[in-house]
Amino acid sequence: MNEALKMNYGNFFSDIPRDIDDEVFDTILSPGHFEIKRIISKGNQSPPDYWYDQERNEWVMVLKGAAALKFENNRKTVKMIPGDFIHIPAHCKHRVEWTDPDAETIWLAVYY
Amino acid sequence: MNEALKMNYGNFFSDIPRDIDDEVFDTILSPGHFEIKRIISKGNQSPPDYWYDQERNEWVMVLKGAAALKFENNRKTVKMIPGDFIHIPAHCKHRVEWTDPDAETIWLAVYY
Repeated sequence: MNEALKMNYGNFFSDIPRDIDDEVFDTILSPGHFEIKRIISKGNQSPPDYWYDQERNEWVMVLKGAAALKFENNRKTVKMIPGDFIHIPAHCKHRVEWTDPDAETIWLAVYY
Repeated sequence: MNEALKMNYGNFFSDIPRDIDDEVFDTILSPGHFEIKRIISKGNQSPPDYWYDQERNEWVMVLKGAAALKFENNRKTVKMIPGDFIHIPAHCKHRVEWTDPDAETIWLAVYY
């Protein structure tokens, strides 16, 4: 059994916290060379003028809800609905511009 | 830009083939030390008495549809609905016992 395995099985859409003041990050699988996380947002957005500048590449998909990401290099805003995925290379500056305030947005993120 | 990146962005639920005789495997991201695939099933099941015996670990989640996996070690059948995920260690023998014949079942699989 993999030490890094947080859960052997489960449902990605269960155990959603009732109140989401800040985005909720849960590690699902973390074998060392990559990491799978579940992120839950509800109306959360990055602080004004804040840009994520990550050490790792990120492959991220919206599974429920709706969101918008903004990228610094082209200033483009990308709307995301369920099934939409995007690859964000390390140090590609981006921010969460908007998430649906009325329902949970559930993301699957793979960092590597 | 990552050479191994098949698509920079897309929607996981689009470009579903109309006819699915065999399960359809699409590589979404393959940076070397792990691989993300989309699998589409429609009524497919493993051949009688066939067991997958994989070299790699697999973390797999059903995103749409319904399926049942069977495991050789405990002979248990695990029903899977959207959001259900399971970790299948390398060489843990398993088979696809059933997938919904009336609608596509869409899986996200991470091999590592």
